[in-house]
Amino acid sequence: MLETLKEIVFKANLELVQQGLVIYTWGNVSGYDPDSKYVIIKPSGVDYDTMKVEDMVVVDLDGQIIEGSMRPSSDTPTHLELYKEYPSLRGIAHTHSMWATSFAQAQTGITPYGTTHADYFYGPIPCTRELTQDEVTSNYEINTGRVIIETLRQQAIQPLEVPGILVGHHGPFTWGHSPENAVHNAKVLEEVAKMAYRTVAINPKAEPVPQYLLDKHYFRKHGKNAYYGQQKGDE
Amino acid sequence: MLETLKEIVFKANLELVQQGLVIYTWGNVSGYDPDSKYVIIKPSGVDYDTMKVEDMVVVDLDGQIIEGSMRPSSDTPTHLELYKEYPSLRGIAHTHSMWATSFAQAQTGITPYGTTHADYFYGPIPCTRELTQDEVTSNYEINTGRVIIETLRQQAIQPLEVPGILVGHHGPFTWGHSPENAVHNAKVLEEVAKMAYRTVAINPKAEPVPQYLLDKHYFRKHGKNAYYGQQKGDE
Amino acid sequence: MLETLKEIVFKANLELVQQGLVIYTWGNVSGYDPDSKYVIIKPSGVDYDTMKVEDMVVVDLDGQIIEGSMRPSSDTPTHLELYKEYPSLRGIAHTHSMWATSFAQAQTGITPYGTTHADYFYGPIPCTRELTQDEVTSNYEINTGRVIIETLRQQAIQPLEVPGILVGHHGPFTWGHSPENAVHNAKVLEEVAKMAYRTVAINPKAEPVPQYLLDKHYFRKHGKNAYYGQQKGDE
Amino acid sequence: MLETLKEIVFKANLELVQQGLVIYTWGNVSGYDPDSKYVIIKPSGVDYDTMKVEDMVVVDLDGQIIEGSMRPSSDTPTHLELYKEYPSLRGIAHTHSMWATSFAQAQTGITPYGTTHADYFYGPIPCTRELTQDEVTSNYEINTGRVIIETLRQQAIQPLEVPGILVGHHGPFTWGHSPENAVHNAKVLEEVAKMAYRTVAINPKAEPVPQYLLDKHYFRKHGKNAYYGQQKGDE
Repeated sequence: MLETLKEIVFKANLELVQQGLVIYTWGNVSGYDPDSKYVIIKPSGVDYDTMKVEDMVVVDLDGQIIEGSMRPSSDTPTHLELYKEYPSLRGIAHTHSMWATSFAQAQTGITPYGTTHADYFYGPIPCTRELTQDEVTSNYEINTGRVIIETLRQQAIQPLEVPGILVGHHGPFTWGHSPENAVHNAKVLEEVAKMAYRTVAINPKAEPVPQYLLDKHYFRKHGKNAYYGQQKGDE
Repeated sequence: MLETLKEIVFKANLELVQQGLVIYTWGNVSGYDPDSKYVIIKPSGVDYDTMKVEDMVVVDLDGQIIEGSMRPSSDTPTHLELYKEYPSLRGIAHTHSMWATSFAQAQTGITPYGTTHADYFYGPIPCTRELTQDEVTSNYEINTGRVIIETLRQQAIQPLEVPGILVGHHGPFTWGHSPENAVHNAKVLEEVAKMAYRTVAINPKAEPVPQYLLDKHYFRKHGKNAYYGQQKGDE
Repeated sequence: MLETLKEIVFKANLELVQQGLVIYTWGNVSGYDPDSKYVIIKPSGVDYDTMKVEDMVVVDLDGQIIEGSMRPSSDTPTHLELYKEYPSLRGIAHTHSMWATSFAQAQTGITPYGTTHADYFYGPIPCTRELTQDEVTSNYEINTGRVIIETLRQQAIQPLEVPGILVGHHGPFTWGHSPENAVHNAKVLEEVAKMAYRTVAINPKAEPVPQYLLDKHYFRKHGKNAYYGQQKGDE
Repeated sequence: MLETLKEIVFKANLELVQQGLVIYTWGNVSGYDPDSKYVIIKPSGVDYDTMKVEDMVVVDLDGQIIEGSMRPSSDTPTHLELYKEYPSLRGIAHTHSMWATSFAQAQTGITPYGTTHADYFYGPIPCTRELTQDEVTSNYEINTGRVIIETLRQQAIQPLEVPGILVGHHGPFTWGHSPENAVHNAKVLEEVAKMAYRTVAINPKAEPVPQYLLDKHYFRKHGKNAYYGQQKGDE
């Protein structure tokens, strides 16, 4: 079942490695099928170079395994929380990529300093608060999803307009309109994190990109008046 | 028409990726044919790994499409402003390369600290001022070209002597006597930006290269008394 | 004799190069066979690209060559001290990898700032004190092993729970339940060193990961209640 | 003539690119034949990917072309000054490698902070003073050689014990007992420059490696009591 989506999720997981975002087993990508309400995700702790498409695990939104002989990623409950809250998401990626993780470890969000950021993220990329001891001891992976949702709500962020977040002391989660798009956004987040760090290192008084330039770049690529790419509204 | 130049522009665009200056669709190169006064440029938002030579778009200096079935790069009006002002340019490249973009986001030009810079850029590489809200809201891409020209004029820079600039909060534009040369200068700009950052990090009181050493290196490679390379005046 | 372990040690040495941890001859890996009490180690100063499996040297715990026509790595006495003290170790790796070595040169241990560190190292990664002149002049390589043991004892560290250390002014040693695992830990140490540096550069007041989050991540991967991976207690 | 040395010099030049020390035409390697007193060097401004072994240029110590149809590297007079002063040198390499050049631009030598440095360089790697206007205007390349010799003399350095130097505002020159060894030392210089920078960034009060540890590591690899590698005194 869902063979096409399995193939897409499988390839999106490999793409994490090819883009230099993941070593060993330090990441996972899932995809969501809105018709069946099933999620397909990487198995836990399996090496990327021996993983096969048939190792992908199908679970429902309660985390019950529907198909697959392996245990799903230990981060599966985090993915499920996000799909339940935001059914418009079609893919989620989690990595420990170097720069995004360093910002997460520093409990610091990523300020938009230029058009590279504005082309993909419509505003700052937030960092969640630290989880409490209770939140970590019980249902840790579910609570990771919940603190992401809490942060997006508090900052009134539409998840597809700022398609990624840093989980404090942990690392980035990104999402998108497909599993591949979630990986694409994971790569962009890594690049803009690196650029943001260097911008401030070059000029400690660097100012964020003006709002009107953020608007211009975001909306020339996204939404109904977009004119970047080959189709109206193409991304 | 202009099949040779199309091939050159196509390959110069791929070279941006091979040199590590561009990921995804984050760059573009154009070439200018002074006889026809036509410009050939990359199509908008097309992936480098599926792009073909026949996808290159031919436009005139007013931006009218002369040949090609795809939309030209959304940055085309910036290129056209520069070719109209400086007809000696034969190629222009735009990237979001890491270090040059970080300087642009920091609104900081690149000081020449050594002979690597002096071999290619005859003086500091400027950063433009921020565009105003009006300049961004209407004719943004044209105004990007105009602020480049304004900056070069104010600093009395001959564009082929300092073949690149940083657009504030955005990224680098470089140019040259051919599309390949524009890409070559984009790579050099990236390297000298990285070196300049590290020079100051090693020694916050680092001094610029003395003018006489800048002169020596620039003129041993460029102009009628050049003695670097295999031809008099060879670059 | 011990042909399987020779092959494993040989491949683990090559893996150091493939993982970007070693250039030229700047590293070595050994393996320990608890039945024979023999150690297999890389020969001294041999290039990785010409080295063959039969060049591996077999020594006993007193450093006597049991098999092999080449001299063993000059760091062999350090490895032997560690195997004698901690017979549960099955592999040891030494590198001059960039970030771990820079921390060692700075005489600075690596603070755990996030879950990437916690997934592998159950607490800070220590840096040994400087060796004294006497310790360097006589039996230098043995004393290198001894200062590692001294440091682990003083900090009450179980070596398989913090599978690596920095030797001051020198570089990292890592270990594990196999030669491959020692190399894996060398790679992880390098990554968490880089992340720790950047975390502090982003936020000089960055706080270590809370103990309860360190516990959670370490124990979800290691020990009898582990639930990461495909087997109970699988790493 | 000197066909073997030509081949060695040719390959050593290509090795600069493979080691990531040189892009475009930003480097050169020469070799010295003590019998004929001839020097073989890369031609000026020729791309590494089209260069052939027969393009190597043979010159005498006065810079007269003995064989070859191309102009020798514009830095040839610098190489010749060094071979004339130090006939024990058998190869010299010049690059604009990132970290070494950044230290040169900062007019800052490289302090030995650990054993990686001590394995190859017996003490700090100096940076020359700035050349004067007169020294640059006339005989620039000869004066570059002379300021290297002046610096080594003032600091009482035996060139084969500290096989490299930084020329202020310019970049590194390294040398050795063969052209390949000069390239090897160029790579090591780059790595120890990077490590030194990061050591100080991690700990601004980092202390140099103690003299007794510098001695230990240098002399276990070099000289008559060396015990690193497969031969007595092998490097």
